Amino acid sequence: MKMLLTFFFVFQMASEASGGCEDALQFRFSDIIAKKRNGSVLTAEEIGYMVQAAMTGQAQECQLGALLMAIRIRGMNPQETMTLTKELVASGRVLQWPKEWNGCLVDKHSTGGVGDKISLPLAPALSACGCKVPMISGRGLGHTGGTLDKLESIPGFSSMQSPAKMKTILQSVGCCIVGQSGDLVPADKIFYEIRDVTATVDSLPLITASVMSKKVAESISALILDVKFGEAAQSQTIEEARSLAESLVSVGSSLGIPTLALLSSMDNPIGRCVGNTLEVIEALECLEGTGSNDVRELVTQTGGHLLWLCGKADSKKQGAELIAKTLDDGSALQCFRAMLEAQGVQPEISRTLRSTSSFYKASHHKVLRVERTGTVGLIQARPIAEILNALGAGRSRATDAINHSVGAEILVNVGQHVKEGLCFWCVSLTDVPALQIEHK
Amino acid sequence: MKMLLTFFFVFQMASEASGGCEDALQFRFSDIIAKKRNGSVLTAEEIGYMVQAAMTGQAQECQLGALLMAIRIRGMNPQETMTLTKELVASGRVLQWPKEWNGCLVDKHSTGGVGDKISLPLAPALSACGCKVPMISGRGLGHTGGTLDKLESIPGFSSMQSPAKMKTILQSVGCCIVGQSGDLVPADKIFYEIRDVTATVDSLPLITASVMSKKVAESISALILDVKFGEAAQSQTIEEARSLAESLVSVGSSLGIPTLALLSSMDNPIGRCVGNTLEVIEALECLEGTGSNDVRELVTQTGGHLLWLCGKADSKKQGAELIAKTLDDGSALQCFRAMLEAQGVQPEISRTLRSTSSFYKASHHKVLRVERTGTVGLIQARPIAEILNALGAGRSRATDAINHSVGAEILVNVGQHVKEGLCFWCVSLTDVPALQIEHK
Repeated sequence: MKMLLTFFFVFQMASEASGGCEDALQFRFSDIIAKKRNGSVLTAEEIGYMVQAAMTGQAQECQLGALLMAIRIRGMNPQETMTLTKELVASGRVLQWPKEWNGCLVDKHSTGGVGDKISLPLAPALSACGCKVPMISGRGLGHTGGTLDKLESIPGFSSMQSPAKMKTILQSVGCCIVGQSGDLVPADKIFYEIRDVTATVDSLPLITASVMSKKVAESISALILDVKFGEAAQSQTIEEARSLAESLVSVGSSLGIPTLALLSSMDNPIGRCVGNTLEVIEALECLEGTGSNDVRELVTQTGGHLLWLCGKADSKKQGAELIAKTLDDGSALQCFRAMLEAQGVQPEISRTLRSTSSFYKASHHKVLRVERTGTVGLIQARPIAEILNALGAGRSRATDAINHSVGAEILVNVGQHVKEGLCFWCVSLTDVPALQIEHK
Repeated sequence: MKMLLTFFFVFQMASEASGGCEDALQFRFSDIIAKKRNGSVLTAEEIGYMVQAAMTGQAQECQLGALLMAIRIRGMNPQETMTLTKELVASGRVLQWPKEWNGCLVDKHSTGGVGDKISLPLAPALSACGCKVPMISGRGLGHTGGTLDKLESIPGFSSMQSPAKMKTILQSVGCCIVGQSGDLVPADKIFYEIRDVTATVDSLPLITASVMSKKVAESISALILDVKFGEAAQSQTIEEARSLAESLVSVGSSLGIPTLALLSSMDNPIGRCVGNTLEVIEALECLEGTGSNDVRELVTQTGGHLLWLCGKADSKKQGAELIAKTLDDGSALQCFRAMLEAQGVQPEISRTLRSTSSFYKASHHKVLRVERTGTVGLIQARPIAEILNALGAGRSRATDAINHSVGAEILVNVGQHVKEGLCFWCVSLTDVPALQIEHK
């Protein structure tokens, strides 16, 4: 015991004597990895150093991979998660908006589902209701597609917009859907790209910090979260989804953003189309007041909650009705087109999007037929997504290119009685001409 | 259930139709990471792909860091460990020796201790007994020093020797201590450098595969392992050390190398010196038949076991006596000097090594005194090693330079009664002149 006590004395003396050993007193990245590997709680200083070292390149890529895996397996407590969120925000700039927008700056985040194109109609619908929606979205994450990948199916669409340009677009259009610019939460971008290829995407604290840091940096007034559960969701069970929702809401509320979470089931795909181009087409249907009921339902529900949360509706129900109105009267579609044009799409394309000539098309397609007569019990979303992913609709490396025209349209509904020989799937395979969707 | 079955059919059709989707059927590195992250057993094909992807650069550095962390936390079973060992060996060339050396090619491996300079006297002592010792050693690993780092304290010593040069040295001298050449177990080198900075050094399967792959590639006839346990060892408890020993012996024996393991305690440092230059000086004392008893005991014991294992002694005891003789009659020292010269050291340096002028010296040193009268119960090896490491004796990044002159000499023994004011530690801090070791 006595010997142990003496070592601290020794160490101090040694530092003084050599005059150049301050480094020895600072953090070593590998010590932080070891601490988390052992399941210990990281201090605020250690989390700060972790983010800083990722930013400056002091941490090697392999060290970031190892640390993220240790966090994925060992977890982080709410305090660590909140600290990580704050440190991610502090790694870059925070968006500034005109004072008069206070209270009506809103955003929505979904934890990602197969066929989840909700953001595309929702942002313009909210804008048509008088909100400002500075939506910062991501790219493909595991087996689920990214909103930006979908929008980039539209020729000319540019997801990279400077904060100044975002402000201009919000002023004129009311909404934009953009990628993270380099100076906004830059540390998250570093972590996100590594998580994408290291099987560390589905970590509760990492998801929470990644999602909430972007929302905090957006300086929004209210936030709705669509937390999905089920076979094709990040959260397999409703319990996991509830934990994630609680984690997100807790960090959001502690950092000053009124936050609400909806839990929604994700076993069947959302809508009937999966794959980037096809999902844009389905989003357009919703913006025209038609299309799949479940897509419309999710848009009006999440939008309705947000309108209520920021005081633009007296109840969630009334909020949903206001959103539905913008879909039916064409005002949401008008905002969507204005947003596309503000983000680089030529007017002649944005105005004729529903005609097939506007998109890159698949050269191969295959219609699959039912082998035996029966009733459709479940349309398994995950294998559909995984097959499309493997065919090029998603990416396994951060640098992989996406093939926007790969996709599938599901031609049957759950509960439908199907006869042998009926078409039930249509898979679009590669680029160049002839996307023909055969309807049942 | 019916839907699930159908997907395989769909997938095959899709592959046929597109004609360019074979990639989709191969491994994705992130899937292998996810599998191990979840604690599943990897197949031989997956382990083969893991090693191959590390070699070709198909796997990103962050992916290797994440996979190694997943293996560190989730472990590998004996079958996986043996497969990994074989795949590491297969990543490079295997050394070939003249047929007449069969049976007398031996090596020793220690799991690393503080002050562990055993290899330095052991290799030449074995050589003096008629063995061939193609010892491939490593560099600093966590808080313990590496044999190569120690030898490189000697001006001119070169640890990089081609297989052809190794053969020449073994022919003329009988032993060499070298680093892994680029073409020998190259995949291990990649993993080793990443483990060093990602807190994944202390993983039983990774240690086993790393150690045993090098030994298998050396094509040796017998192997002794010195597996250490205690506060300053990789294995904290004797049970952990026994698991590691069993793992190493099991892989060695299955791959055709008669392997024996000794378990030895590692609470106090081995010998009285810690730090690269100081340890070389202590190794020289052993080669002159003097110096610390525990160093001599470990050299004669491990050497004795090896001589017995390869049939050069009738018993372990007789083997130990043969080794002791080479230390006392100067034949081991002669082999050591011949080895140094064959590996680049000038004869005038190799022959006058004990005089202080042959080494790089520390400019600062500090003698620490006992604060209160008492009896020394334990000399904690780990904090000594960690302090010296932080002062430059070790590395925290694979690319860090080592300061060879940083070290400590312990001036008291366990069980010794010490009076207040007595010198008990001497720390050497930086390079340039004047290493003065004050003796009690």
